[in-house]
Amino acid sequence: MEIREEVRKVKAAAPQMAALSETQRNQALQAVSDALAARKEEIFAANEEDRRQAEKEGIAAPVLKRLKFDEGKLHDVTEGIRDLIGLKDPLRQTQLARELDEGLTLYRVTCPIGVIGVIFEARPDALVQISALCIKSGNCVILKGGSEALRTNKILFQIIQKAALEAGLPEHSMLLLEARSEISELLDCYGYVDLLIPRGSNQFVQYIMNHTRIPVMGHADGICHIYVDKEADLKKAIPVILDAKTQYVSACNAVETLLIHRAIAEKFLPELAKELKAHGVELKGTREVQELTGCVEATEEDNRKEYLDYIVSAKIVDSIQEAIDHINTYGSHHTDCILTEDSGAAEEFMMLVDSAGVYQNCSTRFADGYRYGFGAEVGISTGKLHARGPVGLEGLVSYKYKLFGNGHVVGDYASGKRTFHFKDL
Amino acid sequence: MEIREEVRKVKAAAPQMAALSETQRNQALQAVSDALAARKEEIFAANEEDRRQAEKEGIAAPVLKRLKFDEGKLHDVTEGIRDLIGLKDPLRQTQLARELDEGLTLYRVTCPIGVIGVIFEARPDALVQISALCIKSGNCVILKGGSEALRTNKILFQIIQKAALEAGLPEHSMLLLEARSEISELLDCYGYVDLLIPRGSNQFVQYIMNHTRIPVMGHADGICHIYVDKEADLKKAIPVILDAKTQYVSACNAVETLLIHRAIAEKFLPELAKELKAHGVELKGTREVQELTGCVEATEEDNRKEYLDYIVSAKIVDSIQEAIDHINTYGSHHTDCILTEDSGAAEEFMMLVDSAGVYQNCSTRFADGYRYGFGAEVGISTGKLHARGPVGLEGLVSYKYKLFGNGHVVGDYASGKRTFHFKDL
Repeated sequence: MEIREEVRKVKAAAPQMAALSETQRNQALQAVSDALAARKEEIFAANEEDRRQAEKEGIAAPVLKRLKFDEGKLHDVTEGIRDLIGLKDPLRQTQLARELDEGLTLYRVTCPIGVIGVIFEARPDALVQISALCIKSGNCVILKGGSEALRTNKILFQIIQKAALEAGLPEHSMLLLEARSEISELLDCYGYVDLLIPRGSNQFVQYIMNHTRIPVMGHADGICHIYVDKEADLKKAIPVILDAKTQYVSACNAVETLLIHRAIAEKFLPELAKELKAHGVELKGTREVQELTGCVEATEEDNRKEYLDYIVSAKIVDSIQEAIDHINTYGSHHTDCILTEDSGAAEEFMMLVDSAGVYQNCSTRFADGYRYGFGAEVGISTGKLHARGPVGLEGLVSYKYKLFGNGHVVGDYASGKRTFHFKDL
Repeated sequence: MEIREEVRKVKAAAPQMAALSETQRNQALQAVSDALAARKEEIFAANEEDRRQAEKEGIAAPVLKRLKFDEGKLHDVTEGIRDLIGLKDPLRQTQLARELDEGLTLYRVTCPIGVIGVIFEARPDALVQISALCIKSGNCVILKGGSEALRTNKILFQIIQKAALEAGLPEHSMLLLEARSEISELLDCYGYVDLLIPRGSNQFVQYIMNHTRIPVMGHADGICHIYVDKEADLKKAIPVILDAKTQYVSACNAVETLLIHRAIAEKFLPELAKELKAHGVELKGTREVQELTGCVEATEEDNRKEYLDYIVSAKIVDSIQEAIDHINTYGSHHTDCILTEDSGAAEEFMMLVDSAGVYQNCSTRFADGYRYGFGAEVGISTGKLHARGPVGLEGLVSYKYKLFGNGHVVGDYASGKRTFHFKDL
């Protein structure tokens, strides 16, 4: 298969996909959900084969866990589709309506981005979620999932595509890539793919960004901080830090660096060190932190490190300003938290920290599309253009300006014969 | 001057810049406007020197015209600043407020992008407009203008910077680059510059995009179309086409290709050819068009050509669908227009044409921030991510998610001890 030619067909289908009514898109989602339920045994069988193969190859336990697609996962994804059907249409929303002059009216109306390419890890439920988000938002989608889930992805895609096409989606609106080599062909499809969303390791996302001219929405890193202010409630601090570090260590929103105000360090750090140890977390610290806790040494390197493991580094700061500077210098602009009962300090922190998520008194692990009430997410963006933070339906739409006239020409305004009156409707 | 070190200082000033109140930013704008008026003679003198030099070097007349900064231009830019002061604050707008659970509240609030680098043509008024837009939106700005305006830019920047700093802007919030060689140093400042906006030729914008990892907002091309439908009012058609082609030929929103429905071609094309000729426009056409008008031949090449000159190409199409396909294939997704009295045809065209501006019965030259009522623009984006079309204040802001809790941890929601209730406030 010549990928470029297949992708060109997807691009050609994009205007028809954009023109589908809300009812047609919701009916397609319902058809997909029904088909998944009806053919679940085929999916489970393919998934068992994938898992047998992965076990034989000695794949790590967390990867095996994410690879699993069983009755519970099926329930989650069909519930997700039901929620998505209930969400307000992200398309054809009028964001601006303005009469520029008599008979000359401007509207800004949301529309799909076009063709979205998503490269994701070996998690079959992600294939269903991403396909569903793209159907709801009127986008064509090109999917490439982790190779460990090859068989599961193949059957899921077949079921989804068949149901969606029968429900009226354009023929080439969905494409599944199966070989890893096809990724580089996809990266060359500038002009046919409107947006790439790579999910996976920082290194992988950087590789994609450096090898394509297609716009990329991805997060480069998740180096999240918790700053324990001098006005922190230390009883709240420990459970929040433990949750942010251990609730799911390999997530991008797990905390990696703790900044502790000097005024409370002597009291707080030994207690924190004890609790971290009890929960299997290795503490690394600057010389001062070592003296208070007997922990391992942290170097400058550690400031830029996304451990994705039961490790956390700690540093003592003299002021909130030093904490903010540290975060803006070494952080990855993902999610950073202040623990304090002083609302003035919280306000300062939230204003000056340049991150997608700025939190007071809660775990960084809340940074997630589902937990924000977006239904589902295609990823979390650490960029500041277009969507920032967890990206749901809103991040999958653009807009166009529609201008209706009656023979209006610019010359009349340049000459002063006519003037704009800009009346918002 | 080590550019990287200067740019680093600008980045370090960005949080303070973001923290300025609306009043402080508006006062700075007023101070800038007053200072420009008070020191106008210095500006005019520098500009006269720039123009003398440019004339000596044989610079083309349209460039000389844009280079001029006189009493009229000063009036325009100070009026522009006055309008900007009156516009609603683009910062600290709450876009979402949602209680996720008791005591856990999420807000999405607009904030500046950070550091914006703008590389623009030899138009001194652009320096003032861009600086003013960045002050209003709380962004630090790095400016590099066309070399023909060197002296004018230097004095304008000195006046603006001095007034803004005295009014309370952070010390390194503005930077002027003067040498062309400094552009490549700027392109290497990934991590310190949040957004680059290059203005100029398609070739130049492509060069910037290919030589930096910094996100770029630019337009690649302006290949705009007018489709004359079979239901067009031919009396309206001629003036609209003439305006779109000749009102300002070197603008990106000038029309380059005309698509004529076969049903009206025989009647319309000879008349159009006569009018174009009378206005000094060369018509190029397919064989069929040549037979009807005796014009010059247009090749496949012409379909992708941005003439920026008194030249237009024409092609006969059998249907609105053929016109739409042509535009989506060869166009640059900038601005495209249908001339028709059939509102169903207009609706179809506007839905299926994948461009930032889709127009009915008016000139493509309306695609402009001022004409849309945005006050001013930093450029026109043909990308579909972030801002699309003319980019004003809204395109210069991002947002952050603020989450306020009281010791909330994700573990409680994972275990089922607590559940989200998602209540929009």
